[in-house]
Amino acid sequence: MNNPDFITSIVLSAWNNQVRACTKLLSELSDVELMREIVTGKNRGVYILGHLAAVHDRMIPLLGFGDQMYPELNPIFIQTPDKAVEEIPSIAELRNYLESVNEKLNVYFQTMTAEQWLEKHTSVSDEDFAKEPHRNKLSVLISRTNHLANHIGQLLLLK
Amino acid sequence: MNNPDFITSIVLSAWNNQVRACTKLLSELSDVELMREIVTGKNRGVYILGHLAAVHDRMIPLLGFGDQMYPELNPIFIQTPDKAVEEIPSIAELRNYLESVNEKLNVYFQTMTAEQWLEKHTSVSDEDFAKEPHRNKLSVLISRTNHLANHIGQLLLLK
Repeated sequence: MNNPDFITSIVLSAWNNQVRACTKLLSELSDVELMREIVTGKNRGVYILGHLAAVHDRMIPLLGFGDQMYPELNPIFIQTPDKAVEEIPSIAELRNYLESVNEKLNVYFQTMTAEQWLEKHTSVSDEDFAKEPHRNKLSVLISRTNHLANHIGQLLLLK
Repeated sequence: MNNPDFITSIVLSAWNNQVRACTKLLSELSDVELMREIVTGKNRGVYILGHLAAVHDRMIPLLGFGDQMYPELNPIFIQTPDKAVEEIPSIAELRNYLESVNEKLNVYFQTMTAEQWLEKHTSVSDEDFAKEPHRNKLSVLISRTNHLANHIGQLLLLK
């Protein structure tokens, strides 16, 4: 069992578990609950929802799978904090965006071999990657899994 | 670079990153801040601190490294919710416990090979492990990394 594909499949399972937990939690939170600030003066649930959709969407180009699906989310949910932009997509739209992005990632993830997970991601140069081989797609997957877990912890407080 | 030890080292880095982030965050939170409920009616910071110390402490026997250091934490921070037990250790003690436990884990983690990470953990039987080889020490590490990230997300809201 000590083979690379088995090990990367364990890492991928952890991503799938967090995505499932997030999907379940969001299905239990109403639009009204998502409009609330988790703590007074901090992010609203809707911001975290949009932020997750945008961050996961950016994984598509970062992992070399193609273009970002909803680049219009970046200025609202990555480049600026919550409540900096007045007009934002509806919660229904954001729920759909996150679902679509996670589904698209899943299609690619399902068939990836360890060798592919260890390829460089697209924001590191060939020269840097030669010196820092850990800057690979697997590292992106792991850091985004932890990012997701971090925000799930916050969304849980809306329940 | 497609070798098992390299891949498990990437997974371990993610644990180390989360532990470092948690240590830094806790150093920035005062005892007064940690005594606050993150959201009214939900866990206080001190409960999450004790909970992390207890959960990480239980990784020691789970990973076959020896006995738990502070088993007295379990009834307070794992088996019961926050505020169910009136007398709890001081925040200074809990800070020390978490630090000691993380240090002890680190001593073992530093020298582990992929082969050792893929060994069964102690709460799965030989028969079950034969059928479910993913129930190994690496899976424990990954799930505890996500658990830590989840609670860091909550502690961040105390800042």
